[in-house]
Amino acid sequence: MTDTTISEKTVAEVAAAAAGAARAFAATAPRERGAALVAVADALDAHAAELIAIAMRETGLTEARLTGELKRTSWQLRLFADTIVDGAYLDARIDAADPEYVIGPRPDVRRVLEPVGPVLNFAASNFPFAFSVAGGDSAAALAAGCPLVVKAHSGHLELSRRTAEVVTAALAGAGMPEGVFQLIEGQANGVELLKDERIRAGAFTGSTHVGRLLADIAASRPRPIPFYGELGSVNPAYATYADQALLDGFVASVAGSAGQLCTKPGFLFVPEDADLTSVPAAAGAVAEHRLLNPGIGRAFAGRRDAVLGAPGATVLSAGEIREDEAGQRYATPTVVAVDVDTLRAHQEELLEESFGPLSIIVRYTDAAVLPELHRDLFPGNLTATVHARPEELADGSLADLVDALADTSGRVLFGGWPTGVSVTPAMQHGGPYPATTSDATSVGTAAITRFLRGVAYQSAPQELLPAPLRDDNPWGVPQHRSAAGGSTEWGSFAR
Amino acid sequence: MTDTTISEKTVAEVAAAAAGAARAFAATAPRERGAALVAVADALDAHAAELIAIAMRETGLTEARLTGELKRTSWQLRLFADTIVDGAYLDARIDAADPEYVIGPRPDVRRVLEPVGPVLNFAASNFPFAFSVAGGDSAAALAAGCPLVVKAHSGHLELSRRTAEVVTAALAGAGMPEGVFQLIEGQANGVELLKDERIRAGAFTGSTHVGRLLADIAASRPRPIPFYGELGSVNPAYATYADQALLDGFVASVAGSAGQLCTKPGFLFVPEDADLTSVPAAAGAVAEHRLLNPGIGRAFAGRRDAVLGAPGATVLSAGEIREDEAGQRYATPTVVAVDVDTLRAHQEELLEESFGPLSIIVRYTDAAVLPELHRDLFPGNLTATVHARPEELADGSLADLVDALADTSGRVLFGGWPTGVSVTPAMQHGGPYPATTSDATSVGTAAITRFLRGVAYQSAPQELLPAPLRDDNPWGVPQHRSAAGGSTEWGSFAR
Repeated sequence: MTDTTISEKTVAEVAAAAAGAARAFAATAPRERGAALVAVADALDAHAAELIAIAMRETGLTEARLTGELKRTSWQLRLFADTIVDGAYLDARIDAADPEYVIGPRPDVRRVLEPVGPVLNFAASNFPFAFSVAGGDSAAALAAGCPLVVKAHSGHLELSRRTAEVVTAALAGAGMPEGVFQLIEGQANGVELLKDERIRAGAFTGSTHVGRLLADIAASRPRPIPFYGELGSVNPAYATYADQALLDGFVASVAGSAGQLCTKPGFLFVPEDADLTSVPAAAGAVAEHRLLNPGIGRAFAGRRDAVLGAPGATVLSAGEIREDEAGQRYATPTVVAVDVDTLRAHQEELLEESFGPLSIIVRYTDAAVLPELHRDLFPGNLTATVHARPEELADGSLADLVDALADTSGRVLFGGWPTGVSVTPAMQHGGPYPATTSDATSVGTAAITRFLRGVAYQSAPQELLPAPLRDDNPWGVPQHRSAAGGSTEWGSFAR
Repeated sequence: MTDTTISEKTVAEVAAAAAGAARAFAATAPRERGAALVAVADALDAHAAELIAIAMRETGLTEARLTGELKRTSWQLRLFADTIVDGAYLDARIDAADPEYVIGPRPDVRRVLEPVGPVLNFAASNFPFAFSVAGGDSAAALAAGCPLVVKAHSGHLELSRRTAEVVTAALAGAGMPEGVFQLIEGQANGVELLKDERIRAGAFTGSTHVGRLLADIAASRPRPIPFYGELGSVNPAYATYADQALLDGFVASVAGSAGQLCTKPGFLFVPEDADLTSVPAAAGAVAEHRLLNPGIGRAFAGRRDAVLGAPGATVLSAGEIREDEAGQRYATPTVVAVDVDTLRAHQEELLEESFGPLSIIVRYTDAAVLPELHRDLFPGNLTATVHARPEELADGSLADLVDALADTSGRVLFGGWPTGVSVTPAMQHGGPYPATTSDATSVGTAAITRFLRGVAYQSAPQELLPAPLRDDNPWGVPQHRSAAGGSTEWGSFAR
């Protein structure tokens, strides 16, 4: 087993090890790399009891939640294995040489997506499995063939180290080159490595403040690199009605995992005459839940004070915060109600994401203002949700609102709640800033494209072509061929 | 015909017009948008004589070159029409709801690539058609369905205005919404618009200095946006031999369009014993060619002085620069030779791109040092070229070099010269910084992906889904379906 922690290596040594593994890892066939991902998934599943016990102690999350999260994490690795195995993700394109090409003789040109090189992934606090050491960004980078360095989140260091051991052993057992996976600790080390020329892309899940700081570092390097950060989102929901079932679902979504989810609905818009009398009881019935760590607890307490103190806010459920002797805070849900004018007037107190069990219900008098209001106040979110009656969904009256939501969000939901993101080919978890620093998704199989770049080979001998571009196609990948004589596979419109 | 120049609108009005067109333009079917691109191509072809005459006067480029470039430009528009018409570029994905999904019940999720919104494209000086008003970035943005604002290059303003009139009329004639295409002038206006929240992506072709400035502005906005800049490249070529035919080809590639091409080979590595005696005659036989504008002429003269003055440089062809009374400069090719040690020792004078007819031949004694030398000195280029004998291409001895070239370049050529980029599905024109500010391509059909972002719709009623995601599939696009029951179209590896 190779060294996995920064305590045993300098940052420069970590970068060198990652860079040293890049070529051999990039050359692995998708089937081999897929088998390695499955080996990691199997190893995580085999160590589930041990890992979940550590995670419960370090994060305060429940066994049920963590059991589901680990299952999701190993499934995610399997899904990426499945995604790469047929090689379609390589988008191999082969243009035959064409002496009669309309704009002049064209050579044989072949293009394939290749791994960008070493990736540095900053783990999140709130998903100690699914967005951490072996989480989605890690799975996508490894699937793409990029050596990976994970910067552990300080909130679950023991879990990070143990997970890293499991991952490292599984990758080694599957024959992957040494250096393809490394763990580092400490924000300063993470920043130093992000500035290292050998790192070719960054990934991050966390706060807007830290994410923007890191994105700015990546962009201001002598040679900038892409930085895929998932920063902040308040996930507004718009309801044309609000019955008790809807409000109970809302409170459950706000309270789950103590509201420490990037897709928690932070705002629910309801008609002025909606009956909200069930909310206090629903919120009051939620048991207290520990916040992830003292820093998050402190920040949440501050946000809660600001929201509760906003002029014009009606408190539906004040919730409670209790601090124990270790500085950990335990919270029950806070829900306030405001009208649209109050929201507009007190954006400073109200609009910022509250990372914890808090949400704001906004009463509106005129649904027609919602599309413009949304564009003004919520320019970038992971999700936006619509709750409407079937006849309203069918009659076209919501088209302007849906257009505004799609223009500003990565995922638009109709019914249901945005928490509980599934991991599937069609998932999009990323949207206009600050939801993400790019528009790319960090969940679902499309996330792999972030860690790939196109390389074209012109008039190359078969011996020097990457496997996916060779005529004998040893990996059996789909090859999109553009024949000589003016015909391409891409349609027949322009001719 | 709509207004097309900033003289008639404020920057804010331009941004508002682009944003106002976004929704209607995004809703156009690919076939309609493709027809509009073809209409633009037809209009450019119909105005060829007039446009080429203006371009000759403004840029000093030859009629033959400009005729070819305009043909390439209209072809490029047709190729993008062809690329979008079948809708495959939308990457429509439909995951069926699955109550038995392994990580928990999953809803119906559908994802499609949608236009990012208004794009601001900064035109280049050196391709008054192909990388300017109706050039590659413009074609890609319009094909994607993004309203486009082009910032005209000051070097060919009259041509830019006339081209914009032709484009605007053609788009209007094809029924595209007002505001989908606008032209602005002036660097200050360009910068102001780049900072406008309504602009969602930037594109640029030009110098490293200006490109980095704009990229930094895009990255430092309160809400950063992707910026696709193509900045600088010196396109090293590595030859295992150098006969007269090879050297003649090299000189022709360096001298074409007075060396003012982003793919001009700025360095040619040859064995120490290569016979370079034919170079002075070949370079001396090239007629003088005007540089694009006084600023470029002045900068080239400065770079030429620096290279000619570098200690250890042997002048093979000094070339000449003549300045006329209007401040335009006319040049013949400059070629110098250095050895590897001199190149390493005088990187400051030698490594920077010389935008004009100048190149440096580097003599090496040991081919084994080339891969590491290349990685050290040339970390980011559009292209890299190998010239080798057939037996060398076949025997594996070049594998390390090719790996280094692919790791640092967007396109690797075997034989031939990198100038004369073809426009095809497999072309890649973009590579690690500073070749481009992202790894994306700005030439070829893959360039469209820069102006698209994924949006997912969860449990959406058919009436509110975008056309490509509807079950009745009115545009007839390929829909990748992931069925319930654990099977996907993406392979069968993980199950």
